[in-house]
Parts: sequence; C-alpha cells; structure tokens
Amino acid sequence: MSAGLYDVIARRRDVRAEFTGEQLDPAVLERLLGAAHAAPSVGHSQPWDFVLVRDPRTRDEFARHVAGEREVYADSLPADRRETFRPIKVEGIRESGLAVVVTYDPDRGGPHVLGRHTIADAGLYSTCLAIQNLWLAATAEGVGVGWVSFYREEFLRDLLGIPERVRPVAWLCLGPVSHLQEVPDLERHGWRERRPLAEAVHHESFRR
Amino acid sequence: MSAGLYDVIARRRDVRAEFTGEQLDPAVLERLLGAAHAAPSVGHSQPWDFVLVRDPRTRDEFARHVAGEREVYADSLPADRRETFRPIKVEGIRESGLAVVVTYDPDRGGPHVLGRHTIADAGLYSTCLAIQNLWLAATAEGVGVGWVSFYREEFLRDLLGIPERVRPVAWLCLGPVSHLQEVPDLERHGWRERRPLAEAVHHESFRR
Repeated sequence: MSAGLYDVIARRRDVRAEFTGEQLDPAVLERLLGAAHAAPSVGHSQPWDFVLVRDPRTRDEFARHVAGEREVYADSLPADRRETFRPIKVEGIRESGLAVVVTYDPDRGGPHVLGRHTIADAGLYSTCLAIQNLWLAATAEGVGVGWVSFYREEFLRDLLGIPERVRPVAWLCLGPVSHLQEVPDLERHGWRERRPLAEAVHHESFRR
Repeated sequence: MSAGLYDVIARRRDVRAEFTGEQLDPAVLERLLGAAHAAPSVGHSQPWDFVLVRDPRTRDEFARHVAGEREVYADSLPADRRETFRPIKVEGIRESGLAVVVTYDPDRGGPHVLGRHTIADAGLYSTCLAIQNLWLAATAEGVGVGWVSFYREEFLRDLLGIPERVRPVAWLCLGPVSHLQEVPDLERHGWRERRPLAEAVHHESFRR
C-alpha cells in the first residue's frame, strides 16, 4: 500500500504538452475535488474554493495573458538562460479542456481562526495542501495536472469575478494525458538539476 | 492502487495526543523526507529545507513558547469559544520525540526563478506541497504528523539559527502513534464542522 503512494509521488509530473484534449470523466473529477477538500487546514477553516473553468473563451483569454507574461519573463533573462528557456512550454491551457482555479479566502473560519493568530499565511498554506492532495489523486487516476503561474493575480481576479479579499493561488490545467514524462521538463531541458536530499537535511539547527 | 491513495488521504490526521514516544525507524524517516523532496516546485527551485530536531532541550524551549502563544490566543476569544477551546490540545512537541522544521529559502534557484516573476509567494507554495507529500507518506507508514502553528516565526528562527532570509513554514511533530482519530480533533470538540464540498465548487466564475 505504501509502495503505491511512493510510486504516485514519484510519477507525478507538472504537465504541459501531454494533454490529449479528451473530456475528464465527471466521476473522476468529483473524486479529485473530494481529495483536495479532505486536506488539513489551520483551525479546520477549509479556506479553499475551486472554480472549474471549461469555457474556451475564458481559457483563451487567460492563455493570451500568460503568453504576454512569458515574454516579460524571457526578456528579463540573460542571453544564455533565454536560449535554454526558449523551447520550454509553460502551460497547456487550451489543450487540457478544464482548469481548476484554486483560491484562498482569509475570512473563512471567522475572526478567530485557531492556529492562525501568529502566522497570517497559515490559511494560504492549507490551500496548498489541498492542491497537492488533488495533484496526487490525479496522478493515481492517470489524469495530468499542470500548474500555471505566469499570470498576474489581479488579471485572474477580474477574469473570474473573484472578490477582492479572495486570493487566487493556482490555475491548474487538468485532463487525460497520453503519458507522463519520466524526467521533469525543467530537468530534461537543462534548466535546473535535482538537489541532493542530503543538502536539504539539517540536524538540530540550520547549517549555514 | 488509487483506492490506496484515497484511503491515505481520508485517514490522515493532524496528531496531538496519540504519539507513543517511540523512536521513528531511520529508514522510514529517510523515505518520508524523500517523499517531501519529490514535490513539485516553481522553476524546479526545490526551495525547502528540513531541520530535524531531537534535542529535548530545544523541543522543551519551543513547547514553552507555544504554551505562551496558546494563552495569548485563548485570551483573544469570546467566553463561549474560550470554553470550547479549553480541552483542545494544540501540540505534541515533547511526546513525539522528533520535529521536522520545514523552511523556505527564496534565494534558492537564483535570481530568475522560472514561474515566480509574477507571484512572489510561489516558492512558499512549493514548500507546502512538500509538506503534504511528507504527511501522506507518514500516514501510509503508520507515522503520525502534527503541524504546530502557535509560534512566532522570529522565535523559531532564533531557536534554530535560521538565517534572516529563510522563512520557517512549519514545525511538524513526527513519531509512531497508538492510532489515528477517525474524526479530526476540531470536529470532535465541536470547534468547527466540515464544509460541504458543493459549497466550495464554482462553475466558470466565482459565485459571490
């Protein structure tokens, strides 16, 4: 059983190019959202929401915004990194057929969220835990997930009518995939290597 | 196989009172850290670190700080909520034997982290995804995890010698448990109910 989970964790990929465009089975989608919704949250506040976006016009508008931000980013790079970046696909917004936009509502849970008085961002953390539940469940179901982050939060708020107090945390492209890459895209394209685990582990205090 | 993952997601609990105090098998701990380290991260930046804290003096000092913050929080509550809060245990710092403190380093990945130019917090989000991987792997291994959030970040930075630029994200108590509660503590104690999933799901735009 635990081997199954480790296998899912290892196979999970951030998908860009492998979406087939097929419809996602509604029963599968319901299970994925259920997995997200079963995440832990500070003070049991459950501060997440999920906006399902299927309308091709909305996705197209978002894709155009993301393309613009891709250019902004590319222009900020030194020449050699710009060359490495060029072939890297950063989203599959149009191909995936469905977006799950995950948001964070700081007002959920009332004025006294248990465990949040010292760390305002704790509710934001909870929202991310829900995303990872969804991502792993999707991987187990053979469904691809691609987190798009080349966007301005304000743009996405306007696009989906998200209230001012609510923060968009992720645009997730979801859909059936032909396959999952064995090696993450950014490693395959020579953008960045995996860091050895031993470098990330410290004992008793943070090793400078 | 996917049934296995959903089962782990459903059984996962935020543990306070069920730690047995037994040592965690080092091979299991290595697998849990490996699971965390296999999380997705913005621009493949892998911005997390893990500080393993076993020293009882350090854990005791942290527990005393948390007890103080618990009082601060309790004092902020209206009388009826204070009564509901009273029996709720918020940490198992001394009983669990091991803490994994997870931190976020915004400088990891250099000056041009791919996918972070529009959203500064994206690296913080990645760190949370690593935490959820660890949490689910622990659940699958029969190991309890308890996220403590009643602390001031500055205090924890000082306690563990964490550099100024690095942000502590979580103090996770880890250890063998007698059992996992079926119902989350905050539900059992009448603090807060589970929200129906249907209320969290919106279509095409955010329903106000």
